Amino acid sequence: MSFKTDIQIAREAKKLPIQEIGAKLNIPTEHLLPFGHDKAKVSQDFVASARAAKRGKLILVTAINPTPAGEGKTTTTVGLGDGLCAIGKRAAICIREASLGPNFGMKGGAAGGGMAQVVPMEDMNLHFTGDFHAITSAHNLLSAMIDNHIYWGNALEIDERRIVWRRVMDMNDRALRDTVVSLGGVSNGFPRQTGFDITVASEVMAILCLAADLDDLQNRLGDIVVAYTREKKAITCRDIGAEGAMTVLLKDAMQPNLVQTLENNPAFVHGGPFANIAHGCNSVVATQTALGLADYVVTEAGFGADLGAEKFFDIKCRKAGLAPSVAVIVATVRAMKMNGGVAKADLGSENVSAVQKGCPNLGRHIENVKGFGVPVVVAINHFHSDTDAEVAAVKAYVAEQGAEAILCRHWAEGSKGVTALATRVAELADADQAQFAPLYPDDMPLFEKMQTIARRIYRADDVLADDKIRAQLKEWEAAGYGNLPICMAKTQYSFTTDPTRRGAPTGHSVPVREVRLSAGAGFIVAICGEIMTMPGLPRKPAAESIRFNEEGLIEGLF
Amino acid sequence: MSFKTDIQIAREAKKLPIQEIGAKLNIPTEHLLPFGHDKAKVSQDFVASARAAKRGKLILVTAINPTPAGEGKTTTTVGLGDGLCAIGKRAAICIREASLGPNFGMKGGAAGGGMAQVVPMEDMNLHFTGDFHAITSAHNLLSAMIDNHIYWGNALEIDERRIVWRRVMDMNDRALRDTVVSLGGVSNGFPRQTGFDITVASEVMAILCLAADLDDLQNRLGDIVVAYTREKKAITCRDIGAEGAMTVLLKDAMQPNLVQTLENNPAFVHGGPFANIAHGCNSVVATQTALGLADYVVTEAGFGADLGAEKFFDIKCRKAGLAPSVAVIVATVRAMKMNGGVAKADLGSENVSAVQKGCPNLGRHIENVKGFGVPVVVAINHFHSDTDAEVAAVKAYVAEQGAEAILCRHWAEGSKGVTALATRVAELADADQAQFAPLYPDDMPLFEKMQTIARRIYRADDVLADDKIRAQLKEWEAAGYGNLPICMAKTQYSFTTDPTRRGAPTGHSVPVREVRLSAGAGFIVAICGEIMTMPGLPRKPAAESIRFNEEGLIEGLF
Repeated sequence: MSFKTDIQIAREAKKLPIQEIGAKLNIPTEHLLPFGHDKAKVSQDFVASARAAKRGKLILVTAINPTPAGEGKTTTTVGLGDGLCAIGKRAAICIREASLGPNFGMKGGAAGGGMAQVVPMEDMNLHFTGDFHAITSAHNLLSAMIDNHIYWGNALEIDERRIVWRRVMDMNDRALRDTVVSLGGVSNGFPRQTGFDITVASEVMAILCLAADLDDLQNRLGDIVVAYTREKKAITCRDIGAEGAMTVLLKDAMQPNLVQTLENNPAFVHGGPFANIAHGCNSVVATQTALGLADYVVTEAGFGADLGAEKFFDIKCRKAGLAPSVAVIVATVRAMKMNGGVAKADLGSENVSAVQKGCPNLGRHIENVKGFGVPVVVAINHFHSDTDAEVAAVKAYVAEQGAEAILCRHWAEGSKGVTALATRVAELADADQAQFAPLYPDDMPLFEKMQTIARRIYRADDVLADDKIRAQLKEWEAAGYGNLPICMAKTQYSFTTDPTRRGAPTGHSVPVREVRLSAGAGFIVAICGEIMTMPGLPRKPAAESIRFNEEGLIEGLF
Repeated sequence: MSFKTDIQIAREAKKLPIQEIGAKLNIPTEHLLPFGHDKAKVSQDFVASARAAKRGKLILVTAINPTPAGEGKTTTTVGLGDGLCAIGKRAAICIREASLGPNFGMKGGAAGGGMAQVVPMEDMNLHFTGDFHAITSAHNLLSAMIDNHIYWGNALEIDERRIVWRRVMDMNDRALRDTVVSLGGVSNGFPRQTGFDITVASEVMAILCLAADLDDLQNRLGDIVVAYTREKKAITCRDIGAEGAMTVLLKDAMQPNLVQTLENNPAFVHGGPFANIAHGCNSVVATQTALGLADYVVTEAGFGADLGAEKFFDIKCRKAGLAPSVAVIVATVRAMKMNGGVAKADLGSENVSAVQKGCPNLGRHIENVKGFGVPVVVAINHFHSDTDAEVAAVKAYVAEQGAEAILCRHWAEGSKGVTALATRVAELADADQAQFAPLYPDDMPLFEKMQTIARRIYRADDVLADDKIRAQLKEWEAAGYGNLPICMAKTQYSFTTDPTRRGAPTGHSVPVREVRLSAGAGFIVAICGEIMTMPGLPRKPAAESIRFNEEGLIEGLF
């Protein structure tokens, strides 16, 4: 069997002018700000009016713990959106933007795959509509203003050792992880150690993705804690006076981007916060705009359901007042086999017992998501090597858990391979069965929130944290941050903090190494394990192969 | 008398859809890639076909040495373009893009002023179409790849002390001028001292502005010298393998941006290299595109004619094969008075003798520009406090130099204030009198080129440079760079290297402190005095005042 690559399929797409895609959602042309002929931003004014409509049902696509076999979450998100449109529903999808820097290390990613993709793929892997560049600028303006404040006399009495705001760049550049700045004498300021993160790790990114509108954006930016005094008094972005200019820099970036699927259905692609130190979902503004314009909005959350869905529910939905109607958990036969102990090289052979052995990972995610009061459907994302017996094993297992698993062939067939899933999802959404509630109340103490997530979602015995961390949480509670939700930063490969423990392990604990306050985004990050916020390039970076070929097509990026 | 501010006028502009502006130059809608409704890029394909037409006459707007009184060079460029259109000519203007960073230090600039502006002003002072962000990304990708190359074994044997390629950010951030990177241990690389420049100082910016097309861009990027070995062998961007990916990152940025004047005439705004360490003109691609589409193309060069026009002629025109038809030298009565010794506070009072005393600065620029074989007209950019006697004094002086000075009121009146200048410029252009030739031949030794500029343009006695600099120039000549033109980096305020020496001084020398090779851009930079390539923010940065006001308008940026 031979397949076209994702980029080949994407380049053959028959794209409609973006105005026609907007028209499918009744977006007037004057409120679509085009970027070329196949991308547009939806104007701030129209976003405000659209959100007021609140007509749509929200469908979350989440997944089992990711394995090297790939589970196809974005592909299923796109396929389900196309499928809903194909059965006559007015649907839109909402996904995240891609980060520029990593594309020069490993190959860039498609948005979806096979016949279920969002286009234009090349632009989406390069500068797209400039949102991430605007975030970089806003973040680094604040950085420059902090050092400038100190340079001109430090009226706020910032302790230069306690500046927590770093700089960002959308580039994989390990040399910038740990730096000394302001060398070179009096006119360059006071030397101090700091560093750069990649742009998607910026709190500004998380804020942009959670802000309701420009006013809320400015307030949240103002709330960012950038440094402390010697007396450990928090200094905020508002103290520095940067939040107004940052908001001006972000005005266009706050407008959601509209593109299209291969089947010419509307797709909002907006925002892209890290899924570890941030919440890993597309923007609230895009989701709410889509909900105002479409009857069904399909969106996804980062990583597996233990991290992605939990944060989607407990951070994004809680804060934005969103109530999801259905959750789709994506699983593959191959990933079940890997959870059942099969090596990647052996995935091509039928192995029903390994599938069965791996299913409890899926089962726990089903139970967890149901625990939020949201009806669950499992999408089995079909791969050509799957056998009927293996698929039947997954279906049987899921049925035992009181849910339904539906085989989907959107990767190979587009919408006509996913109509069964689309029909079932629409039925469930229309039945209004969901009784969504977050996992824990706002007023639960911070450490108890972590314990609740660890016990109820990860099925851990407890959270381990030394006194310093517990004291820090108490301090933040005293300072008024106690009502914030928790953003867990742990490995996505396991329910535990050990990436090698697949399946549905028990008898483990969750050690919290560090806690961080994201006061503007509005969450406390609990770091469990090593989290890399500035990637490096590999020995042979993709950038060395990226170029225009003789036909004028980009090579090496995909 | 009370005037509207530039931003008030700009906000009241009755903009036409950018497609209608493109139609004035016969650009088909499908070849205009819109950015919102009032900005567009012209597609690569159309640029290639337009340039082949070569129909237009090129008009350079340059100026006397700038003074704090302001000379209004961009305002006159815009006004003259509008004036040519008003007298029935098919004209377009070509100017530079603004840098983002400095707007957060001092207030952002208008593109022109009064009734002679290019809009949308706000976008042009913010992210515009993302060109500078793309340049930042391309530059920093190369930086990351250099450190990554060393990290993975340094096969090219780069001497870490001899890496000349820094990083860039479009921000005024003095803390980044001088840094140490790669701290933190083995996984972050080898610590070394380096720093950041502002993006407009990047050689990538100069290259983008001089490249003929994407192929030429890639070749020039490949030629950049980034480091040396211990044996002082040059290591290029091509050795690192970054030029292909950088070209891909710059593909959109290479397409010229089309916007409009207040009078709805076409304006190309593209590129913005420093006018000291680079050549300070808009892109060759934009100029050539405009020349293919319009009968008259009005463009400007940075600073006064001693720096800006000289580089325009000797770098841009030489390299791009452009032959200007007319040069307009902008002067103001106020600036003549300042050159004549009047303080800024006293400019409001009539002072004919001071005007006369200041005129020799203008006279020397006239003579210099004529020396390139280009006919000269002087535009007296009218200010409301100018008296008839003062204007008459400038006119009389210019007539004595064998040129004509024409009073222009485009700032207050738009095109109807500048028809006399437009008519005269068109006559001169149509007469095809110009016999353009650069100042020196390609094969003149590098040091002699510097001497030629210093003696013939600055009227200096000689160039002073120590043996090390002369030896460096000889080395570059031996390495094949001897045919490059010189890019002088000196103060713009004087013909000399002393910014306080106004007028037309003689009896001075030009000390060259440092020379730099810009092998990709294709010039040798001669640095005469302190050149700041990363500005800082002032005590009270504009950023602290920039915000959206209650009407949703941006405040503090202008």
